[in-house]
Amino acid sequence: MLKIGVIGTGAIGQEHIERLHNKLVGSTVVAVNDINKAQAEEVARRLTPTARVFENGHDLVADQNVEAIVVTSWGPTHEEFVLAAIAAGKPVFCEKPLATSAAACLNIVNAEVASGRHLVQVGFMRRYDKSYRLLKQQIESGNLGEPLMVHCAHRNPNVPDVYGGDMAITDSFPHEIDVLRWLLDDDYVSAQVIMPRKTKHARKDLDDPHMILLETRKGVRIDVEVFVNCPYGYDIQCQVVGEDGVGYLPEPMSVLLRKDTKLSHEILQDWKLRFIDSYDVELQEWIDSVKMGVVRGPTAWDGYFAAVTADACVEAKHSGGVVPIEIGERPAFYAACAFKPAA
Amino acid sequence: MLKIGVIGTGAIGQEHIERLHNKLVGSTVVAVNDINKAQAEEVARRLTPTARVFENGHDLVADQNVEAIVVTSWGPTHEEFVLAAIAAGKPVFCEKPLATSAAACLNIVNAEVASGRHLVQVGFMRRYDKSYRLLKQQIESGNLGEPLMVHCAHRNPNVPDVYGGDMAITDSFPHEIDVLRWLLDDDYVSAQVIMPRKTKHARKDLDDPHMILLETRKGVRIDVEVFVNCPYGYDIQCQVVGEDGVGYLPEPMSVLLRKDTKLSHEILQDWKLRFIDSYDVELQEWIDSVKMGVVRGPTAWDGYFAAVTADACVEAKHSGGVVPIEIGERPAFYAACAFKPAA
Amino acid sequence: MLKIGVIGTGAIGQEHIERLHNKLVGSTVVAVNDINKAQAEEVARRLTPTARVFENGHDLVADQNVEAIVVTSWGPTHEEFVLAAIAAGKPVFCEKPLATSAAACLNIVNAEVASGRHLVQVGFMRRYDKSYRLLKQQIESGNLGEPLMVHCAHRNPNVPDVYGGDMAITDSFPHEIDVLRWLLDDDYVSAQVIMPRKTKHARKDLDDPHMILLETRKGVRIDVEVFVNCPYGYDIQCQVVGEDGVGYLPEPMSVLLRKDTKLSHEILQDWKLRFIDSYDVELQEWIDSVKMGVVRGPTAWDGYFAAVTADACVEAKHSGGVVPIEIGERPAFYAACAFKPAA
Amino acid sequence: MLKIGVIGTGAIGQEHIERLHNKLVGSTVVAVNDINKAQAEEVARRLTPTARVFENGHDLVADQNVEAIVVTSWGPTHEEFVLAAIAAGKPVFCEKPLATSAAACLNIVNAEVASGRHLVQVGFMRRYDKSYRLLKQQIESGNLGEPLMVHCAHRNPNVPDVYGGDMAITDSFPHEIDVLRWLLDDDYVSAQVIMPRKTKHARKDLDDPHMILLETRKGVRIDVEVFVNCPYGYDIQCQVVGEDGVGYLPEPMSVLLRKDTKLSHEILQDWKLRFIDSYDVELQEWIDSVKMGVVRGPTAWDGYFAAVTADACVEAKHSGGVVPIEIGERPAFYAACAFKPAA
Repeated sequence: MLKIGVIGTGAIGQEHIERLHNKLVGSTVVAVNDINKAQAEEVARRLTPTARVFENGHDLVADQNVEAIVVTSWGPTHEEFVLAAIAAGKPVFCEKPLATSAAACLNIVNAEVASGRHLVQVGFMRRYDKSYRLLKQQIESGNLGEPLMVHCAHRNPNVPDVYGGDMAITDSFPHEIDVLRWLLDDDYVSAQVIMPRKTKHARKDLDDPHMILLETRKGVRIDVEVFVNCPYGYDIQCQVVGEDGVGYLPEPMSVLLRKDTKLSHEILQDWKLRFIDSYDVELQEWIDSVKMGVVRGPTAWDGYFAAVTADACVEAKHSGGVVPIEIGERPAFYAACAFKPAA
Repeated sequence: MLKIGVIGTGAIGQEHIERLHNKLVGSTVVAVNDINKAQAEEVARRLTPTARVFENGHDLVADQNVEAIVVTSWGPTHEEFVLAAIAAGKPVFCEKPLATSAAACLNIVNAEVASGRHLVQVGFMRRYDKSYRLLKQQIESGNLGEPLMVHCAHRNPNVPDVYGGDMAITDSFPHEIDVLRWLLDDDYVSAQVIMPRKTKHARKDLDDPHMILLETRKGVRIDVEVFVNCPYGYDIQCQVVGEDGVGYLPEPMSVLLRKDTKLSHEILQDWKLRFIDSYDVELQEWIDSVKMGVVRGPTAWDGYFAAVTADACVEAKHSGGVVPIEIGERPAFYAACAFKPAA
Repeated sequence: MLKIGVIGTGAIGQEHIERLHNKLVGSTVVAVNDINKAQAEEVARRLTPTARVFENGHDLVADQNVEAIVVTSWGPTHEEFVLAAIAAGKPVFCEKPLATSAAACLNIVNAEVASGRHLVQVGFMRRYDKSYRLLKQQIESGNLGEPLMVHCAHRNPNVPDVYGGDMAITDSFPHEIDVLRWLLDDDYVSAQVIMPRKTKHARKDLDDPHMILLETRKGVRIDVEVFVNCPYGYDIQCQVVGEDGVGYLPEPMSVLLRKDTKLSHEILQDWKLRFIDSYDVELQEWIDSVKMGVVRGPTAWDGYFAAVTADACVEAKHSGGVVPIEIGERPAFYAACAFKPAA
Repeated sequence: MLKIGVIGTGAIGQEHIERLHNKLVGSTVVAVNDINKAQAEEVARRLTPTARVFENGHDLVADQNVEAIVVTSWGPTHEEFVLAAIAAGKPVFCEKPLATSAAACLNIVNAEVASGRHLVQVGFMRRYDKSYRLLKQQIESGNLGEPLMVHCAHRNPNVPDVYGGDMAITDSFPHEIDVLRWLLDDDYVSAQVIMPRKTKHARKDLDDPHMILLETRKGVRIDVEVFVNCPYGYDIQCQVVGEDGVGYLPEPMSVLLRKDTKLSHEILQDWKLRFIDSYDVELQEWIDSVKMGVVRGPTAWDGYFAAVTADACVEAKHSGGVVPIEIGERPAFYAACAFKPAA
């Protein structure tokens, strides 16, 4: 049993504790911490009564009984806890974002490289979604030929009032940033953002939709529609156009109906329903890989790349031009972490 | 210009006059007749003002200016007018049914054979529907291998109050009777009818749905669901299971929508919308073939076969057993009429 | 940890040991037995080294360390081991068939009822398949109205040489027998079997395909095509026609491709790929329910019902007529076992 | 019968003569001309033996027996013949392009406006395609809300050796230029062209694929993939993303097959198969509208707009930047020509 300490007992933290302690195989949650200690105690009592509640996240990291760390605290605190885990030489799973700035992400990369051990995994869960894995198999099998273009859409039925500013780019789009790099096994070299006519369904102070264009090192051109007031539902689409064929991300499974004058499939309304199974796969694979002493999921470098790309997109949106994505070469250290889905 | 006389100026008669006189190529309506003379005069005035209005259908058939006849009068009168056309040696297109009893249909067959000329075509319009033709091409190309089973559904959103008794078999089902014989190039040898649980949407005195089972000479087994209080719409389905593959009747073309929580196609609500284009193709091909002196569409024999099959199905429904479909060999005379769709 | 003993270490036995011991949560395999002791020892060594290998299945059942039994031995031995488990008061999961005759199944039912405890679950795994559960939700929600007809197909690309006689009915069809009763929450009252034209792809001594017709207590009519030399692949279809709408069993998830002149989905070639996930769900739910002291899956009564129905279908095939399915009322004892899928 | 003269008896000219003389209703071809007189004579003899063969296109335009003109000659000659028809006050249908430069198109617009009569129609046949009309109905009904984005693909399996330079923009893309303006009832204000990684299937001297981005006056953003070495087939896609829903251009009707391990639709391999029916609709509507003294199809202004847009796209491709599409206001004269599809 892998003994895990969880820092941050908010919504996602509670879900992960439930998974790690009760649902998945091979792990137990032995320690929890939250800035709100009362909440941490309530969560522990309810989900993992024998776990120790720490007043301080750093103490949790340092505790001898804790073998691996899960960071689900407030974004601005990610950097310090991930760095602490690296310093303690303990594997750490950090929910996205890895850190709230590219510079902070780079600190983590540098610390991990300096430590000489692969310890950090970032919570980009789409890589664990069955439909993306099926699409990646098509690409890797060579069935589509070399990818030339990717057409995507990221549509949400609505967003909360706190969702504003450039969050379409900094909060919604990072899922595509990571999963498309992984799908294509490629990196980005430039970004452009186009602002279509605004939908009447968006709040007055919110830009919606966005069209984001990325160029990769190999010359693949990607267009992603990010549309967060799309009334019909939560809908993630991805079409890879290769030299030899085109492959589409599968739709979620649902009953085909003939009813009420329509031949229809139901569209999901909530991203959780769409990706809930991915969290289980993601954390089960993390547990299994930690036990084997490796990191096979998204690395700190992937978290850093996402931050740099999002920054370039924000700049591109405001400048209206094409913005280069400049990032040094990936440290050789990370070459060994490449994730391959099981056959 | 083929000079046509139309007997029967009700709804379908008016539609055919409009087609033959104004829409299609190579024909003109020069004579009309109806038991309701005032209606015939009004229709002529509106759609084909120079046409002569006959008080009597037999006079219309005999008139020297009339080269071909279209019979769209009340069913019980079909036999006499078709026989008159045969006697006059003039091509005749008769709306379904060819006649209202198998015996009457056989009279027509015998008269036509005795005349030595192919003159009669019956208005089974599904053979002219684009989707059925595409399915037939798959069968004839050998792409599916030999057909083994056919699974069909004939669904209507509702039926008028006059629709009662065994009309599911005698009025709705004959479309399948004819089009499946044509699709398979095969004949029926037995029928069985199974009565599923009745839908709450059917009138108290109406049986609905029916499951009708047919066996062909080659051993193909056909099941057809006839469901005429199917609330979602008008829907015709046909799936041919062959030794090597399965082919489905194409759905009508419509825009795929993502809207209101659904990924959907609209389902048609009216059989006319489904088959309206088939009438144009049917009558254009009839005009063209009459000019070439042949009949290429459904023959009198096909009309007779449909009547005998429907009778067997009615008997099977009431007896609950398997009823043989006994009909003599097709006269050699009809071998020359086999219709092949254009390549 | 539920301590399980497994009787039968052939292919399916090994797969279940792997699941119960290594993959699922909350169970461990502590005892194994097989008629081939050397094989049992090899399997134990490889998959669960600390398990005890019993020379005799009855000793395994009786062993104090064994809390629950899994029977995956040769069909003719199922009855004795399940009866032994009942006698020992231990929960038992028995792979299908429950026993190889209706009489033997009834012995089990009687023994279980007499014991007063729900102990037996039969391995009908389709109830655990995601696509069937989605379809059942549509029915139970009332979205389709009352079911009137069900159209099904059970297609296999090929069958081994040992597959002969009436195995289409006794081996392939029982999956539909059980899952359709469960889907409809209804029982069968009669069966009929129709033999379509035989496919050229079947062995000379094998009948293929079959069309099996079932009638339920509520009057629902079911038609199931069983076609085991269907060259295109393994394909399970189910269409429920209700008063208000029609629902289709979802297709397995796959990438939609545009390639080689086709817009296509890949069709699975192996039933294992189709239902492999269901085994995990089935056994995980069994473990969880055994720990709660209940049986929530297919009961001995369901196993008995399947046997009686298959017998009636075999008789119907050979007689060509409609055969009543006569079975006494379900013992009140089983009313408490009804399985409801999680919301 | 509308008496038509056809200038240009090459491939498309011959097809139109066959349509206008033999297939459609209400027209006859009375005069033909080609720079290759022998060919014109051969074509006339074969398709319309009573037509007069003119040595000179201008004489054909001027001939008193000719009531309307169809121009299907070599592109560089379009301008002079269309101007001649305007000068003669005769309706003229000109195959695309209207003329080979924006300046030449503008000459035609100016001449037509000066003449005070609507005489010119350009052969953009996609407006007559059933699938585009269904999509336009969805937009015009308000069902999708205001369009915000349009995602398109124009894929060809291959191109002939003469297809080079910027023909993806000047030859393939004009179909989208016209049909999208018509679909959206909007004009373009800027263009950008992005060059993805080149496919290995393209000739060394040919750029392929292109991604073309257009912005409309209302702010709609359009992306069109033009990919002319797309091995799987000829494929035209269009997805309109509106405020309230998304609508897709219907796929061509085809039989759904289960065969050879695939659930598949056949993809067309030739643009002619895709749009052949549109030519019939286009020319039948032109005949009908000419008889009513109006032009309801694409106008000279539409031809001019297409030329200006294509020029901007070529410039954008070569500059790499965003190029404004500057064109004066549409003359009020053209406001009366707006085409509405029949209800």
